[in-house]
Amino acid sequence: MGLLQIVLISLATAMVAGWGNFQSYNLEERDLDFRDVDLNKLVSKLPLEQQKTVNGSILYDPNWESLDARPLPSWYDEAKIGIFIHWGVFSVPAVRTEWFWNVWKRGNSNECEMYVLNNFKPNFTYQEFAPDFTAEFYDPFAWANLFARSGAKYVVLTSKHHEGYTLWPSRYSWSWNSMDVGSKRDLLGDLATAIRENTTLKFGLYHSLYEWYNPQWMRDFANNFTTTEFVDNKITPSLYELVNTYEPEIFWSDGEWDAPSEYWHAQEFLAWLYNTSPVKDTVVTNDRWGGDTLCKHGGYYTCADRYNPGVLQPHKWENCMTLDKSWGYRKNANIEDYMTPEKLIQTIVESVSCGGNVLVNVGPTKEGIISPVQQERLLQMGEWLGINGEAIYESVPWLYQNDTVTPDVWYTTNKNETKVYAVLINWSQEVNLGAVEMQTVSAVRMLGAEGMLLWSGAEVGINVILPALDKVDSKWAWTLVIEKV
Amino acid sequence: MGLLQIVLISLATAMVAGWGNFQSYNLEERDLDFRDVDLNKLVSKLPLEQQKTVNGSILYDPNWESLDARPLPSWYDEAKIGIFIHWGVFSVPAVRTEWFWNVWKRGNSNECEMYVLNNFKPNFTYQEFAPDFTAEFYDPFAWANLFARSGAKYVVLTSKHHEGYTLWPSRYSWSWNSMDVGSKRDLLGDLATAIRENTTLKFGLYHSLYEWYNPQWMRDFANNFTTTEFVDNKITPSLYELVNTYEPEIFWSDGEWDAPSEYWHAQEFLAWLYNTSPVKDTVVTNDRWGGDTLCKHGGYYTCADRYNPGVLQPHKWENCMTLDKSWGYRKNANIEDYMTPEKLIQTIVESVSCGGNVLVNVGPTKEGIISPVQQERLLQMGEWLGINGEAIYESVPWLYQNDTVTPDVWYTTNKNETKVYAVLINWSQEVNLGAVEMQTVSAVRMLGAEGMLLWSGAEVGINVILPALDKVDSKWAWTLVIEKV
Amino acid sequence: MGLLQIVLISLATAMVAGWGNFQSYNLEERDLDFRDVDLNKLVSKLPLEQQKTVNGSILYDPNWESLDARPLPSWYDEAKIGIFIHWGVFSVPAVRTEWFWNVWKRGNSNECEMYVLNNFKPNFTYQEFAPDFTAEFYDPFAWANLFARSGAKYVVLTSKHHEGYTLWPSRYSWSWNSMDVGSKRDLLGDLATAIRENTTLKFGLYHSLYEWYNPQWMRDFANNFTTTEFVDNKITPSLYELVNTYEPEIFWSDGEWDAPSEYWHAQEFLAWLYNTSPVKDTVVTNDRWGGDTLCKHGGYYTCADRYNPGVLQPHKWENCMTLDKSWGYRKNANIEDYMTPEKLIQTIVESVSCGGNVLVNVGPTKEGIISPVQQERLLQMGEWLGINGEAIYESVPWLYQNDTVTPDVWYTTNKNETKVYAVLINWSQEVNLGAVEMQTVSAVRMLGAEGMLLWSGAEVGINVILPALDKVDSKWAWTLVIEKV
Amino acid sequence: MGLLQIVLISLATAMVAGWGNFQSYNLEERDLDFRDVDLNKLVSKLPLEQQKTVNGSILYDPNWESLDARPLPSWYDEAKIGIFIHWGVFSVPAVRTEWFWNVWKRGNSNECEMYVLNNFKPNFTYQEFAPDFTAEFYDPFAWANLFARSGAKYVVLTSKHHEGYTLWPSRYSWSWNSMDVGSKRDLLGDLATAIRENTTLKFGLYHSLYEWYNPQWMRDFANNFTTTEFVDNKITPSLYELVNTYEPEIFWSDGEWDAPSEYWHAQEFLAWLYNTSPVKDTVVTNDRWGGDTLCKHGGYYTCADRYNPGVLQPHKWENCMTLDKSWGYRKNANIEDYMTPEKLIQTIVESVSCGGNVLVNVGPTKEGIISPVQQERLLQMGEWLGINGEAIYESVPWLYQNDTVTPDVWYTTNKNETKVYAVLINWSQEVNLGAVEMQTVSAVRMLGAEGMLLWSGAEVGINVILPALDKVDSKWAWTLVIEKV
Repeated sequence: MGLLQIVLISLATAMVAGWGNFQSYNLEERDLDFRDVDLNKLVSKLPLEQQKTVNGSILYDPNWESLDARPLPSWYDEAKIGIFIHWGVFSVPAVRTEWFWNVWKRGNSNECEMYVLNNFKPNFTYQEFAPDFTAEFYDPFAWANLFARSGAKYVVLTSKHHEGYTLWPSRYSWSWNSMDVGSKRDLLGDLATAIRENTTLKFGLYHSLYEWYNPQWMRDFANNFTTTEFVDNKITPSLYELVNTYEPEIFWSDGEWDAPSEYWHAQEFLAWLYNTSPVKDTVVTNDRWGGDTLCKHGGYYTCADRYNPGVLQPHKWENCMTLDKSWGYRKNANIEDYMTPEKLIQTIVESVSCGGNVLVNVGPTKEGIISPVQQERLLQMGEWLGINGEAIYESVPWLYQNDTVTPDVWYTTNKNETKVYAVLINWSQEVNLGAVEMQTVSAVRMLGAEGMLLWSGAEVGINVILPALDKVDSKWAWTLVIEKV
Repeated sequence: MGLLQIVLISLATAMVAGWGNFQSYNLEERDLDFRDVDLNKLVSKLPLEQQKTVNGSILYDPNWESLDARPLPSWYDEAKIGIFIHWGVFSVPAVRTEWFWNVWKRGNSNECEMYVLNNFKPNFTYQEFAPDFTAEFYDPFAWANLFARSGAKYVVLTSKHHEGYTLWPSRYSWSWNSMDVGSKRDLLGDLATAIRENTTLKFGLYHSLYEWYNPQWMRDFANNFTTTEFVDNKITPSLYELVNTYEPEIFWSDGEWDAPSEYWHAQEFLAWLYNTSPVKDTVVTNDRWGGDTLCKHGGYYTCADRYNPGVLQPHKWENCMTLDKSWGYRKNANIEDYMTPEKLIQTIVESVSCGGNVLVNVGPTKEGIISPVQQERLLQMGEWLGINGEAIYESVPWLYQNDTVTPDVWYTTNKNETKVYAVLINWSQEVNLGAVEMQTVSAVRMLGAEGMLLWSGAEVGINVILPALDKVDSKWAWTLVIEKV
Repeated sequence: MGLLQIVLISLATAMVAGWGNFQSYNLEERDLDFRDVDLNKLVSKLPLEQQKTVNGSILYDPNWESLDARPLPSWYDEAKIGIFIHWGVFSVPAVRTEWFWNVWKRGNSNECEMYVLNNFKPNFTYQEFAPDFTAEFYDPFAWANLFARSGAKYVVLTSKHHEGYTLWPSRYSWSWNSMDVGSKRDLLGDLATAIRENTTLKFGLYHSLYEWYNPQWMRDFANNFTTTEFVDNKITPSLYELVNTYEPEIFWSDGEWDAPSEYWHAQEFLAWLYNTSPVKDTVVTNDRWGGDTLCKHGGYYTCADRYNPGVLQPHKWENCMTLDKSWGYRKNANIEDYMTPEKLIQTIVESVSCGGNVLVNVGPTKEGIISPVQQERLLQMGEWLGINGEAIYESVPWLYQNDTVTPDVWYTTNKNETKVYAVLINWSQEVNLGAVEMQTVSAVRMLGAEGMLLWSGAEVGINVILPALDKVDSKWAWTLVIEKV
Repeated sequence: MGLLQIVLISLATAMVAGWGNFQSYNLEERDLDFRDVDLNKLVSKLPLEQQKTVNGSILYDPNWESLDARPLPSWYDEAKIGIFIHWGVFSVPAVRTEWFWNVWKRGNSNECEMYVLNNFKPNFTYQEFAPDFTAEFYDPFAWANLFARSGAKYVVLTSKHHEGYTLWPSRYSWSWNSMDVGSKRDLLGDLATAIRENTTLKFGLYHSLYEWYNPQWMRDFANNFTTTEFVDNKITPSLYELVNTYEPEIFWSDGEWDAPSEYWHAQEFLAWLYNTSPVKDTVVTNDRWGGDTLCKHGGYYTCADRYNPGVLQPHKWENCMTLDKSWGYRKNANIEDYMTPEKLIQTIVESVSCGGNVLVNVGPTKEGIISPVQQERLLQMGEWLGINGEAIYESVPWLYQNDTVTPDVWYTTNKNETKVYAVLINWSQEVNLGAVEMQTVSAVRMLGAEGMLLWSGAEVGINVILPALDKVDSKWAWTLVIEKV
């Protein structure tokens, strides 16, 4: 690692850390907007000689120290809300979980086993579900419009889940992809086109490294990764094929845990992705690159499914969560299994307040439909964000995230900290905002309501009188804007 | 027709007409509660000699004059809310409409034609959808519980729609019923059992007289009903089989329009149904018994699908309406196609105010699931009725149905007219009830809110001040109870 | 019964008996050719007055005495060889037997039960085989040509087997026929057309009266035939529909045994068939019209499947037999299960010698193919009949049928008895024909060989020296023609 | 190449050439039986020092010169008759040809295109045929017994045809093999076991190098073989997997023509196969290893499908031919499309006389059945070989192969040339054998007939009087054994 990289890494470290805590920041470098992750801009701050080297050469080495130093492209933190789409052959049985195959074969679910035993002929295999993955009603432009109306700013599609079936015609998954069996479409490519042509959302891809029942994987696993046939013959060429063909702006890796990142050649791939790939300047990745990386290495951290720590985190993170109990579609879901709009919005508010993005999952049907109840939740989210988005998009965490005086109030602030947003999960006619110092307040109002609100100093913080509920637009959580002096 | 029947008919006519308009009623017969349709009670009012004749003999002759004179069993008007279920082979394509077969074959729908052309092999027939009507998740006890929670008091299932496929193992529909092809279950019988064992709801059956593509029907039709092979070989024996086997408390006839009621032997069937059948005392029927009967003869009137006249009717009627645009399930429905809870509750309020019942339709999937959005609407209805049911169940139409001063207020009253219910479709902080005379009011309160409301006389009627919205339980329409002096 | 019928019956009895035994015939009526069954010709022999009555009125009463008196149309006896075709939904599983459904359901065959258990989903029904009865390669003109090349003179197709599925679009079998489910063709009508347009073969129909699992049949059966719903609603109208639509020249009834002919209204149907139907002059029927009729009443006798009594019979009969062990196609048949050409030709020779016709059965595949091995046997039969047909077609039984001196020699003669045909099942260089009296012989030759043969008187009958085998055309059985003096 | 190999090659060349032409052989090496291809024996003829080197080291280098020098294991030439089995997903459509996919997609066959268009849903893919490759009646022990009864001495199964679907659970063909989709069996392994456990036949494998629509192949092809992804990722590992797992005694390569043998790494594979593999001592291969090898390099030569040159060849060869017009099963084949037993036996006689083996192809059905007509031909072949096998098995070509005097007489001889076999394709009472010198003859007899035959010298060769045809066992071609003086 040369001097340049050391410099870059220190800059980048500051930047990445920066969205967390202003106070600790070195004021001498204030000329660098630390949230600006545009690499060219960043490089332009360097001495001329170093700039040349950077532009003509490799920036990242294939090791975690170098890779982790890459600043996260700024669009991602500003976007806050994404749509996750779990779609695959598991959408055909559509029972219990997208892990259907695994759960069935391990005998872990009476529900999956009985479903197959009762409804299919003896010795039916999971592969034989695939011809029924027909997607005859799949309208990617309708999906794109729905996602835009939901208020989300990016989309992440399962290009390939642990089942191994690819939603694109991969050269490395012959006869086990959506062009050869099932819909006979490039489901992935068609969505990429629709998203890019009809919306301003970013398009990203989920990709599972391991494939439960691929015999090459099973052999490498059984050999304790002393053999690498699976990763060499299949995974590595697939990764390059995916990125070069579809240029995803998020690469959401998964299925990494059973093998170390060395087995997956993850560091080499990321170095190529950041240095050379067609999306090198804008792509965002996550932290699932090997048994040694979760919550430690890569781009933003996901740490766990439905990760929602409730306190500010030192590294950019994402809460991926799902509307139904399952990520994949379930034919036999009940309304009680779906998240209510109240809970969905609370999750968004909590996560964003603590520095997270939220990736809201939908599971389309095998026919290509996002079911009405899922549409309803997305549109309810869009309705709420239409009123309250100012407190979410491009916001940054405030000094305080929530309030010991009044529970279920969550704070954010705008980039230049001229406003604090206090989002109330529960309605009450009068609210005491314990974290807001009276002296800093010039005015208080509510998003989606006319006029200024009455407020006064309290023992701790301030008291605010809310308008009559029937004069308020927002249905589920209510944002107070505290204008700073 | 003997004297007895003349007497009965005049009594019954009064009774039936009675729920409509108090003023015109003959006061001398006030000792008869005209809403009491218990036949034994009614007969007990007659001279002793005539009573004997009635109890030991045939009450109804097979002609409309006699049949129409039968009082409607009282449970039906008191129930107000029923669930309609459209389920059949049309739930397999689940595209556009339960009339899929007809629309496709008549070339009336590009959507249906293209769906078949694009997704099935050449010369695919409608009958070949049936093996896929699998109902593997059908849980009639779960349905029964859902319907009970919805606040409905009766259920009407399509025993056979115009396609001719029977949901029970009919002796007259071999190889074209749910036991022979598809689920291999008596879908009808299993629901009857679940409803009766687990709820207090009444169980009724829809039945289509005609069958679009039954060649015996097509021949009788082509012969202008000079032949009667279809009705003799198939329909008449089916009707008796259905009633004797399942003892439905509603017989909801349909598909009658192309032939006169004479062709269908409808009068003979109804005379048997009312005189002799196992449900003779409790069964309710509708008005779809031949091209000459709609809105004219039979039991209650349906007049048209989604019938909602907006004014009080002189004969008991029912508004059958559906949550989606289609009666049968549609795989590709969007959330915008579903009725909102606001609109659903408005429909109930309007219909009941004008003397109607409401039959709310759901369309289960081919797998046997009532989809989450349909569950949600039913539970929203149940939530609303849990708060506001006092204004609906067992209510009777008031002198006025709505209000020229404040639109979208609908009135009902209780049986002894001690209370008037004014249901507000729209919220406002103060409301002027133009139909309520100040002098008659002793108090005003709101269902689902604490305490008495402030009210005062107005230029026309009274003004009422409503509570703060956040102190009110009801989410969608709000019932004011005007206690009479 | 009037005089006319007595006369007719006595004439007819003579005629029918006549093909059996010349000697017993009343010589005074020799002016009537007793094998001439043209009714008009026959009537023309009667007194003028009686002729008038006959022409203007009903010939046959609906009772066995009258019906049995009808002379068998002459074409049938002359034809000798027919093709039987067993085709239906049973051709889809194509395992073990065309009785698959029954054998499976009664648990009589481990093979059928295991086939369904191992290869289909739980609760699969027989009806669900029908969509796969696709007949995509069905070429009735190719079938017609094959049958013509086989040397057969008539064809009998299973219009409906015991399963109840009809190969024509019957008005009485909606959704359980070949037009609604499966091939979407009038399989029966298309074969009728091809046979009639392309060949001189007669076209006949097999029809099963009972239907194992038709619930109307099961109820009549359970009621010990005190109810007649099945026969009235379904069978009787079907019979008239079939005959009026397709005008079969053979009506091959079956499935009669469980109920008496009264239940089936068989006598009424036959009286109509003989008196009034469009095929009244030419139609031939068999003897399967009720539990009381087999080998006793009706047209020709079938007595049993594969009936081959080995001695001359007093009533015209037919040996219906099949090439495979099963009548319906079997996917897993082995070559050993098929009759050899030697055995097939021996069966023909024996049956015809004893006054029988032979109905050779083929079982086409569900795709509509007559399999190569079945084609081969039919063409081998055609090759043999091309050489030896003179001894078969239009032949009549001789005084002797076979020979105690040399076994496996079977005799026939021509109508005017100028030639005797001795068919040798086994080859030998010299043969002793024990039944041929030396004095009656003018010459001996072999069909399919050049020149006259050497012969001489023997202790019993005559000895004949056969040609060298490599100078003989026939491959399997060899016909000696004994020219009479 | 060391001295040893030069010696070996010269020996081997002599040996291989040797079965063709005695006269040209170097008499000094007569102590080596040139038909003895036992390597150990051969090596034992070498100087001791050279023997040691051979036993402890690599015998064959990966180049054609070295590989071609390997003597063909002797069992193969002695076996003469093998069974070829074409079985795969093409057995599901079973229309026209096992090249169905290719012919359909190239638009080369109206029959294939129309079959798919008329019988499957739009956009149906070839891969979607695979679930229907069910093999439910597959009984490999029954197959083994049939093959043994046919007189064949080896079996060659299509382990993978050009479609790429493997009949074994290959690690390199996940989700496109018989264990994952279709029968859920190791079809290949089960036949290997049955053949080896129940018969003395040798078990061999056919394997296609190219796969029409494998995208990796298509890319290497499009890149003019400058890339080798397909062969490296898939073919090479598959070849080793196949041989190590199933130890085939014939490796029948195919699909080689579009790429040079260098691309296929064929020489490296064969060197491993001959030097190191578990079948190194006994395995036989053919000549289809690259566009440069047909009829030039490898083991025995196949040159073309149905290769039957009619004259003696300088290199061991095989005539692979098929009973139907197609190699794969055809549902709509007619009997005329099948080879007659006469033609089949003629082909065997001609080929063996000219030094060839014959590989007789059958095409089983998708259910796993060898159809009756195919069984019949195999058993007819077995019947003939049971009588005439002495002229075929372990025979060697004679000085003359056929005869200008009497056409359709073909000669073979036994290893020590004490007998000449003249096989007559056509029967005649007297035959003139032009190639047989009178002086060399001690006696003449016929296989399958009693006693010695009359013979005498003729103008050219000898005349033989045949027995009466009805005293002869053989039905189709007749073998005269000329005992030498």
